[in-house]
Amino acid sequence: MTVRSLTIVTFDRVPDFARGFVRDLRVRWAAEEAALPYTIAAISSTNRGDAHRTMQPFLQVPILKDGDLSLFESGAILWYLGEKSEALLPRETAAKAETMQWLFAALNTIEPAVMGWVLASIIDRNEAQAKLAVGRMGKRLDPLSDVLQSRDYIAAGRFTIADILVADVLRTIGSHGGLEGYQTLSDYVARMTARPAFVKSHQDQLAHWRASDADADAATVG
Amino acid sequence: MTVRSLTIVTFDRVPDFARGFVRDLRVRWAAEEAALPYTIAAISSTNRGDAHRTMQPFLQVPILKDGDLSLFESGAILWYLGEKSEALLPRETAAKAETMQWLFAALNTIEPAVMGWVLASIIDRNEAQAKLAVGRMGKRLDPLSDVLQSRDYIAAGRFTIADILVADVLRTIGSHGGLEGYQTLSDYVARMTARPAFVKSHQDQLAHWRASDADADAATVG
Repeated sequence: MTVRSLTIVTFDRVPDFARGFVRDLRVRWAAEEAALPYTIAAISSTNRGDAHRTMQPFLQVPILKDGDLSLFESGAILWYLGEKSEALLPRETAAKAETMQWLFAALNTIEPAVMGWVLASIIDRNEAQAKLAVGRMGKRLDPLSDVLQSRDYIAAGRFTIADILVADVLRTIGSHGGLEGYQTLSDYVARMTARPAFVKSHQDQLAHWRASDADADAATVG
Repeated sequence: MTVRSLTIVTFDRVPDFARGFVRDLRVRWAAEEAALPYTIAAISSTNRGDAHRTMQPFLQVPILKDGDLSLFESGAILWYLGEKSEALLPRETAAKAETMQWLFAALNTIEPAVMGWVLASIIDRNEAQAKLAVGRMGKRLDPLSDVLQSRDYIAAGRFTIADILVADVLRTIGSHGGLEGYQTLSDYVARMTARPAFVKSHQDQLAHWRASDADADAATVG
């Protein structure tokens, strides 16, 4: 089997607050865990045109390219990489199903509640709305904390792509102080983000933005 | 191969406004499309105890039982049924990946924007917030409408589990008048909900609540 290099498409530059949090990180992290070779391609974040729209109708990133295949949605990309590598997704039926269950739970049950809080408190700065949103977020974080109290990993008794998504969603709240009082969840995030594959992905993403800044500076000076 | 009967776990009763929209419908619909045999089991919606929590830490429904396996998250359950039946999920790599991509897009890109609008306008009745939410929902519905303008199905050129989720999410907005001005999306919902498997699932769910009402009445009289 020849291993074809994957391409992860992300933006060329993003505002400071987004650096370290753009979702290409989820895909980099998975590729690093599975030792799948990949390259990064950058597209403009400020001029999102038809070339972008053809790959991603909502004009988001990341996009994964694998030969002729072009795929968006970080959850779908992680599933796709999981099918390539057992390091990401167990093969046994029950363990695989449990992993997929938590992959979807991270994206459809936990993340919307978290993003509701981020929108209200950080983006809209609406205090009344933020109070409502904290209550809604708690209905997700409290049970999740109970589950993680007796587990090192969220599914299948081992590291999987579900940990990448659960940890990445929680990391976002944590960075805004939203995990105060959730020691179990903070500990889980600390364990997951201490993994060498996360550390490398995170450093690589930050380096990517720095390189874009340097390019832009050079263009200005030029 | 013996076909084991699946069990779909849902609530015993729900408020009137939720009838026809509880997410066991997504699972019933998939099972009907694939002609997979199933039975329905009801758990209390008003006394959600430890037996429920063991199956579903967030105390939601649906839950799918398949022998010893117990699975939650409608997206994960649809993927699981898709692995059982090609009628739900194509086997060819690119078509399967495209289906998974739209399955995740429905749940992580479209539904959160839709639910933001439902929360603001229907639950919280907050006019300023609803206005913001309409703008955010439009950023998802406009591109989705563009995509569906040239397609009968959302992925892989045929009916898949991705259509179940996209149509079910859109159906929720439609029922609150949120698809006004989106003719392409309304037409798509009309096509999908005209499918015999949807019609039967919808009727069966409504009959399930009526049966629960009758049981409760009988208990009161007795």
